[in-house]
Order: sequence, then structure tokens, then C-alpha cells
Amino acid sequence: MDRHFDEELKILKEKLISMSSIAEEMIQKSTTALKDRNTALIADVFEKEKDVNMLQIEVDDIALKLIALHQPAASDLRFIISAIKINSDLERIGDLAINIAQCAQDLLKEAPLKPLIDIPRMADIAQKMVKDAIDAFVNKNSVLARDVCMRDDSVDDLNDQIFRELLTYMMQDSKNINRAIELILVARHLERIADHATNIGEDVYYIVEGKDIRHHVEDSQ
Amino acid sequence: MDRHFDEELKILKEKLISMSSIAEEMIQKSTTALKDRNTALIADVFEKEKDVNMLQIEVDDIALKLIALHQPAASDLRFIISAIKINSDLERIGDLAINIAQCAQDLLKEAPLKPLIDIPRMADIAQKMVKDAIDAFVNKNSVLARDVCMRDDSVDDLNDQIFRELLTYMMQDSKNINRAIELILVARHLERIADHATNIGEDVYYIVEGKDIRHHVEDSQ
Repeated sequence: MDRHFDEELKILKEKLISMSSIAEEMIQKSTTALKDRNTALIADVFEKEKDVNMLQIEVDDIALKLIALHQPAASDLRFIISAIKINSDLERIGDLAINIAQCAQDLLKEAPLKPLIDIPRMADIAQKMVKDAIDAFVNKNSVLARDVCMRDDSVDDLNDQIFRELLTYMMQDSKNINRAIELILVARHLERIADHATNIGEDVYYIVEGKDIRHHVEDSQ
Repeated sequence: MDRHFDEELKILKEKLISMSSIAEEMIQKSTTALKDRNTALIADVFEKEKDVNMLQIEVDDIALKLIALHQPAASDLRFIISAIKINSDLERIGDLAINIAQCAQDLLKEAPLKPLIDIPRMADIAQKMVKDAIDAFVNKNSVLARDVCMRDDSVDDLNDQIFRELLTYMMQDSKNINRAIELILVARHLERIADHATNIGEDVYYIVEGKDIRHHVEDSQ
């Protein structure tokens, strides 16, 4: 493969790493804003949205040019197509962090319903899943990719647990309902972020191992 | 372009149309199950999941082979890459219909909270958006594609309206909370289905017109 192709591929990877870093920062800041009742962090998150959107367009352009100009071999082609899919996942992750920031904005207008423990924990796991999924992609590390997919269950469990706890708050006093629903939504957004990281992990596993674990992750162990 | 390429491309389009038809049927059946309290329809929806998953793997395989074996020109390449993205969207739409069927399953265990009017209306709009987005894709119809994107607002409005109404039910009586939350989730799943149809519409607009409306749909009017 020619040197120009390798350089372009390196840029593609770097752009995805930048996008992932921004998305991770958005996840962290939106949930910390909520936990620490810090409105300045919410503004930071909104500010980052356009950076993610711009990177999304750049990554798609680079990927398409790589395919059109260099007609890469099958394995490189698979890698570039995955970059296009991962690009969409990262953009959605950014959108979900924006959704969390919007919930935080509403929640900070009222007194706190309860101290937040599980939501920040969920955010930490989801953020690490995004980071590791992208690391697995750029390093073609199928072991790490599968590990990311396996962590999805713990996020789903936390989401269920948060949901049940908040349901109790709502049952106790109807004045809690609004805030409880916002927190349920935050947990759900985090769960979807973890789902996108899992999608990336599944894609990486596929391009490295040539096996599809999308619809049967448990079979690949 | 050679005849074999055209034939493979036709198969790719047909597979996406089949996938879309199944996904549309899943949306319709899951919400009708809820409205008419028909558990048999829920089983039908669960049954369809594996068909969508199988088609997803087939579409990705055909698309990759098309690129690798025929090294298509820029515009064909763009079309095939879009098919890969649309494939992901359709698979997620199927998943969301499964989520609706799961909510319906829980809701049918209890007495109805209220007669459902807006949720079936939202389902009709979302289903039509999916159908039109795929039609716009296979016929490279950018006018229809933009029209799909514009309809997303009416779905968002219905979702907000449903949310506010159900909040009132929850405030009135804590015994309503569980069922109201399930219905809020159904509306949210439908809203996400419409989002995926909008993503497809944006992709189609881009490949036909060469302009990106992903992050500024209102600028393209």
C-alpha cells in the first residue's frame, strides 16, 4: 500500500480519537454538572457539540476519499467502512451527552431529589467503554473490543436499579415525579451511550476476527 | 458499469426494501398490540427480529463485496456506503419496535390507563417516515428525503404532548405511575424510530444533492 494511503489512514484514526476524546469529555462534564450542581459545565458541553459535528463530516470525507482514490484491499476496506460506522456512533454519543446536559439544566432549577451515586458510576463505566472501544479500533484489539461488549450488561443492570429506585421516590410523593423522570432519562441516555460503545466493540471484533458477534455476543466466548 | 454490478446493486436495494417492510410491520404491530390489547401481535413482533438481523448481515456482505470486487465510481460508492449506514438504521428501528412490544407486554398485564389516540398517530407518522426514507433512497429522490426530515418535528411535538399528558396522570394518582412511564417509553421509542428515518433522509439528501443537511436541515429549504 502506498505511503499516501497510510498517511491518510493515520489522519482518519487521529480524527476519530479526537472525536472520542471530545465525546468522553461531554459525558463526564454533563454528569458532573448534575452531581456537583455546576451550571458552567453544562455550557461547556453545549459548546462542544459543533466540534463533534464538524469532525463527523471530516471523517466521512476522508474515508470516502480513501476508498475512491486508493481502492484499498479487502481488509483495509473493512477497516474504513467501520470507521464510517464508528463515526456515526460517536456523533450519537455526543448528542446523548447533550441530552444529559439538557436534563441537568432542568434539574438544577430545582432542589436535589437525592444524592447521586449510581448515575456518576454509570457515566464512568460508559465513558471508559467509549474510550476502550476506540482504542480497540485503532489498535485492532479484538480482546479489548469483546471486553467492551461484555461491560454493557453492568450498565443495563445499573439502569434497571436506578429506574426502580426512582419509581419508589415517585410513588412516595407526586412532587418528586418531575425530577425522578429527568433522572430516569439521564440513566437511559447513559445506557444508550454504552450501547453505541458496544456497537463499536462489535464492529471491531468483526473486522479483526472476521466473526460477527452483533446478534450473539455470548457465543463468541 | 458492468451488468453484474447492476444486478448486485438491485439485490442490495431489494434487501433494504424487504428489511424496511419488516421493520414497518413491527412498528405497526407493536403499537396496534398496545392499542387493541392484542397479545398475539406481540409474539409476531418478537418473531420478526431474527429476520431483520439476518438481512442486516446479508446487506453488509453484499455492500462490501460490491465495493471490493467492482471498485465503483464515486457516486456509486457513496450510494453503497449509504446503504451500509441505512442498514444500521433499519436494524435499530427493528430493535426499537421490539422495545415497544416489550412495553406492550408489560402494559397488557394491567388495566388500560387511558384510551390511546396520540401514540397510534405517532406510530403511523413514524412508520410512513421509514417507508418514505427507503423509497427516497432507492429512487434517489431528494425532495421526498427532505420531506421525511421535515416531518420529524411533528413527531417531537407529539412526544412532548404525550409526555405532559402522562405526567398529569402520574401526579393525580401514584397508582398510575408504572403504566404512565411505560407509555412515555413507547412514545420515546417511536420518536427514536422517527430520528432514524430522519438520519436516512439526511443521508439520501446528501448522496443525491451533494449537500450535507445533517446538522442544519432548516438551511436547505
